[in-house]
Amino acid sequence: MNTVKVSIIGSTGYVGAELVHGFVNHPGVEIKYLTSESFKGQKFSDIYPVYRGICDVELVSTKDVSYDVIGKESDLVITALPHGVSSVAVPQLLDSGCRVIDHSGDFRYKNLDTYEKSYKLDHPHPELLKDAVYGLPELYREQIKTAKLVANPGCYPTCSIVALTPLLKAGLIEKSGIIIDATSGVTGAGRKEKLDYSYCEVDEAFKPYGVVGHRHTTEINEQLSFISGDETGRTIKAAFTPHLAPFRRGMLASIYVRPSASFGEVTTQKVHDALEEYYKNEKFVRVLPVGTLPDVKAVNGGNYIDINGAYDPETDLIKLFSAQDNLGKGAALQAIQAFNVMFGFEEDTALGAMIRGV
Amino acid sequence: MNTVKVSIIGSTGYVGAELVHGFVNHPGVEIKYLTSESFKGQKFSDIYPVYRGICDVELVSTKDVSYDVIGKESDLVITALPHGVSSVAVPQLLDSGCRVIDHSGDFRYKNLDTYEKSYKLDHPHPELLKDAVYGLPELYREQIKTAKLVANPGCYPTCSIVALTPLLKAGLIEKSGIIIDATSGVTGAGRKEKLDYSYCEVDEAFKPYGVVGHRHTTEINEQLSFISGDETGRTIKAAFTPHLAPFRRGMLASIYVRPSASFGEVTTQKVHDALEEYYKNEKFVRVLPVGTLPDVKAVNGGNYIDINGAYDPETDLIKLFSAQDNLGKGAALQAIQAFNVMFGFEEDTALGAMIRGV
Amino acid sequence: MNTVKVSIIGSTGYVGAELVHGFVNHPGVEIKYLTSESFKGQKFSDIYPVYRGICDVELVSTKDVSYDVIGKESDLVITALPHGVSSVAVPQLLDSGCRVIDHSGDFRYKNLDTYEKSYKLDHPHPELLKDAVYGLPELYREQIKTAKLVANPGCYPTCSIVALTPLLKAGLIEKSGIIIDATSGVTGAGRKEKLDYSYCEVDEAFKPYGVVGHRHTTEINEQLSFISGDETGRTIKAAFTPHLAPFRRGMLASIYVRPSASFGEVTTQKVHDALEEYYKNEKFVRVLPVGTLPDVKAVNGGNYIDINGAYDPETDLIKLFSAQDNLGKGAALQAIQAFNVMFGFEEDTALGAMIRGV
Amino acid sequence: MNTVKVSIIGSTGYVGAELVHGFVNHPGVEIKYLTSESFKGQKFSDIYPVYRGICDVELVSTKDVSYDVIGKESDLVITALPHGVSSVAVPQLLDSGCRVIDHSGDFRYKNLDTYEKSYKLDHPHPELLKDAVYGLPELYREQIKTAKLVANPGCYPTCSIVALTPLLKAGLIEKSGIIIDATSGVTGAGRKEKLDYSYCEVDEAFKPYGVVGHRHTTEINEQLSFISGDETGRTIKAAFTPHLAPFRRGMLASIYVRPSASFGEVTTQKVHDALEEYYKNEKFVRVLPVGTLPDVKAVNGGNYIDINGAYDPETDLIKLFSAQDNLGKGAALQAIQAFNVMFGFEEDTALGAMIRGV
Repeated sequence: MNTVKVSIIGSTGYVGAELVHGFVNHPGVEIKYLTSESFKGQKFSDIYPVYRGICDVELVSTKDVSYDVIGKESDLVITALPHGVSSVAVPQLLDSGCRVIDHSGDFRYKNLDTYEKSYKLDHPHPELLKDAVYGLPELYREQIKTAKLVANPGCYPTCSIVALTPLLKAGLIEKSGIIIDATSGVTGAGRKEKLDYSYCEVDEAFKPYGVVGHRHTTEINEQLSFISGDETGRTIKAAFTPHLAPFRRGMLASIYVRPSASFGEVTTQKVHDALEEYYKNEKFVRVLPVGTLPDVKAVNGGNYIDINGAYDPETDLIKLFSAQDNLGKGAALQAIQAFNVMFGFEEDTALGAMIRGV
Repeated sequence: MNTVKVSIIGSTGYVGAELVHGFVNHPGVEIKYLTSESFKGQKFSDIYPVYRGICDVELVSTKDVSYDVIGKESDLVITALPHGVSSVAVPQLLDSGCRVIDHSGDFRYKNLDTYEKSYKLDHPHPELLKDAVYGLPELYREQIKTAKLVANPGCYPTCSIVALTPLLKAGLIEKSGIIIDATSGVTGAGRKEKLDYSYCEVDEAFKPYGVVGHRHTTEINEQLSFISGDETGRTIKAAFTPHLAPFRRGMLASIYVRPSASFGEVTTQKVHDALEEYYKNEKFVRVLPVGTLPDVKAVNGGNYIDINGAYDPETDLIKLFSAQDNLGKGAALQAIQAFNVMFGFEEDTALGAMIRGV
Repeated sequence: MNTVKVSIIGSTGYVGAELVHGFVNHPGVEIKYLTSESFKGQKFSDIYPVYRGICDVELVSTKDVSYDVIGKESDLVITALPHGVSSVAVPQLLDSGCRVIDHSGDFRYKNLDTYEKSYKLDHPHPELLKDAVYGLPELYREQIKTAKLVANPGCYPTCSIVALTPLLKAGLIEKSGIIIDATSGVTGAGRKEKLDYSYCEVDEAFKPYGVVGHRHTTEINEQLSFISGDETGRTIKAAFTPHLAPFRRGMLASIYVRPSASFGEVTTQKVHDALEEYYKNEKFVRVLPVGTLPDVKAVNGGNYIDINGAYDPETDLIKLFSAQDNLGKGAALQAIQAFNVMFGFEEDTALGAMIRGV
Repeated sequence: MNTVKVSIIGSTGYVGAELVHGFVNHPGVEIKYLTSESFKGQKFSDIYPVYRGICDVELVSTKDVSYDVIGKESDLVITALPHGVSSVAVPQLLDSGCRVIDHSGDFRYKNLDTYEKSYKLDHPHPELLKDAVYGLPELYREQIKTAKLVANPGCYPTCSIVALTPLLKAGLIEKSGIIIDATSGVTGAGRKEKLDYSYCEVDEAFKPYGVVGHRHTTEINEQLSFISGDETGRTIKAAFTPHLAPFRRGMLASIYVRPSASFGEVTTQKVHDALEEYYKNEKFVRVLPVGTLPDVKAVNGGNYIDINGAYDPETDLIKLFSAQDNLGKGAALQAIQAFNVMFGFEEDTALGAMIRGV
């Protein structure tokens, strides 16, 4: 097995650190550069002491080691940068010849105007959108294999899309009126010195935020539109509402959809079977037994996403639930899953160990 | 001010204890009996050491001190008993001459069959349903004043009904297609020796439960039907989905409704104004400023319920949010609010102090 | 009952907010000014939304309303300022004629050099140290009654001193070799935008800090020396080690001391009895029954301090334990207790309600 | 590499589950039997849903599959049973020919009377105590290699002994007057349906327990005596005090010792250097840089133990601190470390991955 040289841009945020976690356990990876603008010169384990003796790599600034150098000395560079920063950095990395997995929203859209309206930014490199591959292996595995640029999906989009795809594909549900109510753990807000995320403010709190116009809404809608056969990516308009809850890691989506008028009688069993059939060959999507509901506890620390559904005859509504670790399948570990696809590793390499029992 | 003699049946559960909390601070109340079958002979403060020196009342069993005796020596008895137990105990208490506030579901319904189907029980005293008053002071204040029996509302129903009432009354929303996604803290499950609620199982967990047919669904629906003018209590069929989150106290409802076709143009401001107008004279319902969303943190420990809404033009959906303390406005403190109404106290007596800053 | 006009300087920190909590429930107090340099112009309830409708006082800056004006219009001013800032502000307030309770370390010492070495500051007004009263009512009640300036004790000193005083006074323990191992909740660090206190960093963490030379060491030592009869305040040298634990409020001290060689046979009962005898008339110090140990849970939200001890014959060591709420008896509520003493209220006015059952 | 067949008796407690976690990641292990008396017939992943698809082994009862059968079909059996149960089960397993690692206190002592007094039990197989090896690889690596029976150390003893050993061996500290103040996360209490460990009781709580005569005291003392050269195991009498804190996993010991009168001048640097020198070849003991203190956060999920010390010249006291995961180095992962030693694997096989970044 050849060793793949991997660098991480922005390695000291929670996503960056989880990438390190995955890669230090990966038998086919050598970590080349870990960058940090805030902590350059320190060791990665100075920032995350749990890594003392495990990853003591010295952090470098991209002001000292250029994207060009990093890209030339790496087979893959993963960028964990804010949107608007990625769109400038990623093209430089690609120019140097490496492949890239990007964690921002900058390359997730096919419709430039949807991106620009959602992020309130002009995209400096719209020409890259066409070939960038949306990094959800369960949907785009073949394209990921050869992609130069993979746009790692957003956390909320991942759990929304994974749950809805089988039912949309099966024609089991209406495309209109989809309601997604989702909740994230606090790492979703990033590693920030902000009062809003301080222990005393977050503990024993629970609240909605960004209830109108959250950016992930358009990402979800574009992908769901593609999945349901609309190549324009503009037909589906799901309503999306995120919440913040007092746990560190994890994300749950509770999704409310109407059965398709044309489908015939719906039951909980049929919903379950459609999910199971669609994902029967997928290792990381676990369709739970009928009657068992997803819990973020059961996906803590790993790349798994647990899904299930129930049909409520009283209201003629299908309720879908999906749980994932927002830093796992929702971010860093899904990127490693895509990495494994890109570089020909078994898709679960380094990811099997990444669970937490209690 | 005369002193009102109050007894609490089932005083060592979390609802019972919160009742004690409220009443020890109430200038017009003398606690007469606190009952507990599990802990009889011990002091209340042995079970909740925080009350040492504050409430050292000795717990009695209703096997030793009968409902008749308790009722005769009390002006008001509050029952915090499981459903099916209350329906047997409450009639005995009423017979003894006292007034009663009951915390179970046994007297919350007007439609006997809805109760019996929801709780899978035969009601031994259906004749009491007619005169029992649903104890939401914001809706039934006049009836509570003179009620012999007040059925304290369920926690999920309280936050659902308080948020939806103004918009239903104003004709602003459709009665069909109401979706209520709600989350409770762990005290909602009661004080139980159960692995499901142990620290290591609940911490860092988040999950839906009872997603089809949760009992509170029919309670919500009957009340919403009454509110929207349907005296049968059977027309509204909201979809209700509860979740359990890792905090001790608090409850949030996120409610999705469609604007009424007949209403004309809807805006966030109009939603807000309808809420504010309806509750302008209510002390415990706080309609937040436009753009500010409820957080369970901000109602922790008290009898307040914070509500607000937003209109999403992309999906033509109104999102309503309400936050309360599940033991506060969702249970014990709402009962004390009703008590104040019943016995002629200022409605916020003993309740003003009941907040937690951090 | 006359109304006492109270102002709070630095009202939006956790100590300031807990002072507000206490005073809004106090029947004899009118809140005059609440100051905040960071949030001036906003309402107090904008910063702490739980107070919406309860305390909507507009925050003022001391740059806009001078200490002189605040002092002249207030009977009492409570300063919740950092050390080094208080020592400048308090003299100005005193000059204006009001009485002052200060929360910093600036006026807690009698030995100027001990203060200056501990805080690495020159004291601008050392002349005030002599008349400032250490605000522990259980020790200095008489002096507090007439004090112009009360120095509210530190949190760690309060729980250390309250536990040790009876045994030192009774000659039951050696003055040398005292070891204090203490743990604080996160509010002890203040309301700060600091990564160290963010949810994801504090949750599931536990660590010692400031293990050599923490400032509270010298405050403890000076007071314990006075208590044990040493007027110089320099003889006792306890070892003090603080820890940070993942809860918001609360503090526990575990104290290890040797029985006095001259005392004769020691037992757990004798330790308990010495504590109980000493505090038999104190409402807020609760000596637990033999065999029951303090828990921060049981003092959460209130002004109580629970203490107890055990004698270990195997090691000839007395273990003392004291639990308090670090914002309660450890800070704001102890200040309100002192306020009640200063202004002739019942000592538990407004404080009885301040507990949390669960 | 040959595959070692491993069975776990009592696999559904937290220690058992963490053993499974480690072994599913171990390249040289086949899990043969997982036993559970409470959950027989179910899959391991039914009890811990996070393992769905990772470990779906069916749980068996030892009433259905005897110790003899389990032992004969396994190379190693790990028992995670209560004390008093292990002492009966382990001899049967040994008789069947397998090697055993036991998690109870039943085989940790050399002095039978110390065990029997500490555990208030008669030992049915005292003849096994002599050859049982105390499973701390850093102290007994050579004996573990060939041991038939390894007694996995207690959690509190592990962190106490690892911190104190270098200083005792170096003659740096007095053997008398050792004080150990330690705190455990809630998994330390086991997976139990007990109100004491329910979320609402543990959250926002912190308390000492078992402050006189906790069983781990004698285990610590026997080992420290051996380490300091006393073959009787009876000379050292440390004072030990445990506490329970609101986190799931982790343990911190804060240890107070006096410098040896004969050692000469002590400094923090010398303390640090003695620790570092002693453990310079140990992978899992991390001596932190001078001035950096252990935090349970930094050992969460893994087999590492972080230690450091500080000398306080004011009190002439050395403060030692050690942090470990109570289920990691404090229990299951230390057992896997010993397993690696017993069966000739690299000592960190399967353990490198076992950390948690956030």
